[in-house]
Amino acid sequence: MKKLVALSLTTLLLFSCTEKKENSNNSISFSAEEKIDSTNIKHFFNLALTQGKSYEWLRDLTTNVGGRLSGSPEAAKAVKWGERIMKETGLDTVWLQPAIVPHWVRGEKEIANYTVNGQKINMPVCALGGSIGTPKNGITAEVIEVKSVAEAVALGNQLKGKIVFFNRPFDNTLINTFSAYGGCVGQRVNGAKAVGKFGAKAVLVRSMTNNIDDYPHTGTMRYGDIPESEYIPTAAISTKAAELLSNNLKQHPKLKIYFKQQCKNLPKENSFNVIGEIKGAEHPEKIIVVGGHLDSWDLGDGAHDDGTGIVQSLEVLHLFKANNIKPKNTLRVVFFMDEEQGGGGAKAYAEAVKLKKEIHIGGLESDAGGHTPRGFTIDANAGNTKVLQSWKKLLTPYGLHDIQKGGSGADISPLKGEHVTLVGYRPDSQRYFDYHHAATDTFDKVNKRELELGSASMASLIYLMDKYLESPEAIKQ
Amino acid sequence: MKKLVALSLTTLLLFSCTEKKENSNNSISFSAEEKIDSTNIKHFFNLALTQGKSYEWLRDLTTNVGGRLSGSPEAAKAVKWGERIMKETGLDTVWLQPAIVPHWVRGEKEIANYTVNGQKINMPVCALGGSIGTPKNGITAEVIEVKSVAEAVALGNQLKGKIVFFNRPFDNTLINTFSAYGGCVGQRVNGAKAVGKFGAKAVLVRSMTNNIDDYPHTGTMRYGDIPESEYIPTAAISTKAAELLSNNLKQHPKLKIYFKQQCKNLPKENSFNVIGEIKGAEHPEKIIVVGGHLDSWDLGDGAHDDGTGIVQSLEVLHLFKANNIKPKNTLRVVFFMDEEQGGGGAKAYAEAVKLKKEIHIGGLESDAGGHTPRGFTIDANAGNTKVLQSWKKLLTPYGLHDIQKGGSGADISPLKGEHVTLVGYRPDSQRYFDYHHAATDTFDKVNKRELELGSASMASLIYLMDKYLESPEAIKQ
Repeated sequence: MKKLVALSLTTLLLFSCTEKKENSNNSISFSAEEKIDSTNIKHFFNLALTQGKSYEWLRDLTTNVGGRLSGSPEAAKAVKWGERIMKETGLDTVWLQPAIVPHWVRGEKEIANYTVNGQKINMPVCALGGSIGTPKNGITAEVIEVKSVAEAVALGNQLKGKIVFFNRPFDNTLINTFSAYGGCVGQRVNGAKAVGKFGAKAVLVRSMTNNIDDYPHTGTMRYGDIPESEYIPTAAISTKAAELLSNNLKQHPKLKIYFKQQCKNLPKENSFNVIGEIKGAEHPEKIIVVGGHLDSWDLGDGAHDDGTGIVQSLEVLHLFKANNIKPKNTLRVVFFMDEEQGGGGAKAYAEAVKLKKEIHIGGLESDAGGHTPRGFTIDANAGNTKVLQSWKKLLTPYGLHDIQKGGSGADISPLKGEHVTLVGYRPDSQRYFDYHHAATDTFDKVNKRELELGSASMASLIYLMDKYLESPEAIKQ
Repeated sequence: MKKLVALSLTTLLLFSCTEKKENSNNSISFSAEEKIDSTNIKHFFNLALTQGKSYEWLRDLTTNVGGRLSGSPEAAKAVKWGERIMKETGLDTVWLQPAIVPHWVRGEKEIANYTVNGQKINMPVCALGGSIGTPKNGITAEVIEVKSVAEAVALGNQLKGKIVFFNRPFDNTLINTFSAYGGCVGQRVNGAKAVGKFGAKAVLVRSMTNNIDDYPHTGTMRYGDIPESEYIPTAAISTKAAELLSNNLKQHPKLKIYFKQQCKNLPKENSFNVIGEIKGAEHPEKIIVVGGHLDSWDLGDGAHDDGTGIVQSLEVLHLFKANNIKPKNTLRVVFFMDEEQGGGGAKAYAEAVKLKKEIHIGGLESDAGGHTPRGFTIDANAGNTKVLQSWKKLLTPYGLHDIQKGGSGADISPLKGEHVTLVGYRPDSQRYFDYHHAATDTFDKVNKRELELGSASMASLIYLMDKYLESPEAIKQ
């Protein structure tokens, strides 16, 4: 160290502060059993960061399959890809589980534009999943801007013949970007459903992102149980286009938008969840499931949503094998189909569990992107929640500080039950909505180390769940 | 919420888990004074995320000034830029503080190549800062690969006439990437110095990064006090080139590398630190300093290293003004010159402090990139360290979990003293060495929210330091 002091102050300072950090683990006092756990967890991280396969799996999926809408030929290709890599990983069993999924197609590139002061303004636009198309020649109509579904509904018949423009922005002061998403996404999901009955011609929604940029972000919308006669087409425009449109409407409230999209809903398709297992050594009949979703939107390559989730989930099982740890309970990885457009895969999985009377003791889902690890949210009974939180000191050396109550994920939550411990993996959320459902969700946005740290974080939690969830301490509470 | 349940399971789950998280602050019990602090901190974050200036400042600096080596015309331009934006921010005083800095120039593009099996292999290469050039026509020599300075020195006279190739890779199992850097950077700083005396012709060093890619990473090297006759040229090659060279050396141990670089050291230059202040309302004579470094390497635009640090530091003072908080002590922002090549600015600053008998009670440095906040490292006496750690519950809602003992930074550490509390801002380290000292360190690698969260994190800590560091509790310990 002294040599370095003399030669490079900068280096020394960086070194000294981080060396202490790296070794901070040593200052935590562990029981004998916790020491074993700490060592096994360290091995999971070492293996993920040096022999991890998730990054190359993701490269393969995003490059050679790309975007994979439920019901599409690409989704079918993704199923075959998933089956192949699970088999290559040497799991005890790999199978396909049938699931019924929607089949929505985008059709030709959407168009939305208007003219002010003789200047034509093209808005970056994309149809929302599930939406109908416009008439073949498009729609031309005046615009009413609103900030919420309630505000639109209050306008009632004033919406007749209009394009309703939902323009509530993300609340950027919310630290967790999923909270901002939660506060806005209702416009996207329910906007068209709510205003069709008033004779509105179409709905345009501001994209769901923190940024002001040129990318439209797609996502699901629902007509629910309204009569088909009230179905109207709906699409998202980029946030920059939304800001500009809002400004132009102040000067030109009568401006007319031309909007055309050719998307449509085809008959439902047969598809599959891809499932693999390592059989439990002590309780093969008890299952811990780990998964993400295989389908994605079509504009990008489905890298962060949810390519990272599925490769991390399979990596968990790979790391158990590489770390030579035989699980007590059966570890099952599931690549769920159709999370984005209705959860056909999640339903099929939950129904099969009921039918076969399978016992799930726990589940972990990764569907919040592949960024640097932050922690987990726990959906479990009070006793098991406490047990999971007691592992904090084993996990904080890896940046996993946020371990608190919360939801798990759309695909595993149907398994909820008094004695089922469901967990959501929570990476850092700051960059997620830069890419979510947009053309920017590509492989180059994923950092190898961040992805691998996530895989190891998940493997570590599954290891602890497998070891302790069945313990008398966990059950008696 | 119910409406959402029926319509979008996914949305609901995301929403429910994150809403709880966002509000988790509410479950922490605060004293009356802590409630005030909590509110002020929340305002810092709200302001940074909605009215922050740091991102546009950084765009301006990286786009219109770009890379800014100490002593270069670009560094002089950066000084003017810094003075201008500090004045625009409406600080009470802004001034330039003279500093003597090295002036090293890279010269024309470096070349390093070799031929195996009739195939010429060009290696991406860049001179290290401070290195001499090769003879005008370059050097051609055989190669000896080593993994450390000690291993090279042990070879002694076997190095004569050779190019010494230092190829110790980052230890990717270290979670904090600065630890991996600390474990390798000695090769870069001291390699050439150690082997010149044995008659080695040149040194090539594997780039300091976790990745295997095509970018050479520059950085400082030192000849120290060896005679000039022992000076030999040194450069970094990309990690991919290093891996390939290592493999080729196994098959072709006698292969010869051609290496040419035209860099040189010019006479020292007069430059400046850029300094601004908000005078303290109660103790104007007591100073808390916040800063980063204005100079950078030349291959990229010095975005993460350390453009982010200086714009965040100035943002701290901007946020105090925007939040209408008058500090008790004087808040001073310093854009230090020449952190990268010797710390001329840090020396000039520390000397002026001594000369003017200025009292510094604290300092905060941001020089670890602009990624998502993780925490702070504290270099202070035991009492003040404890005081700072007691603020954890105010800071964890913003992802600032890691608050522990450690170094501060190269520019403020000369201010170290028994009653001076020095702190380093610690963002997430995973992506940092993807960009550090390489052509990839550009504006597009910085995420606006992550940068702004960092500014607010720093403002919050400075607010607490300003309010409490002088308190009897802090002093009596």
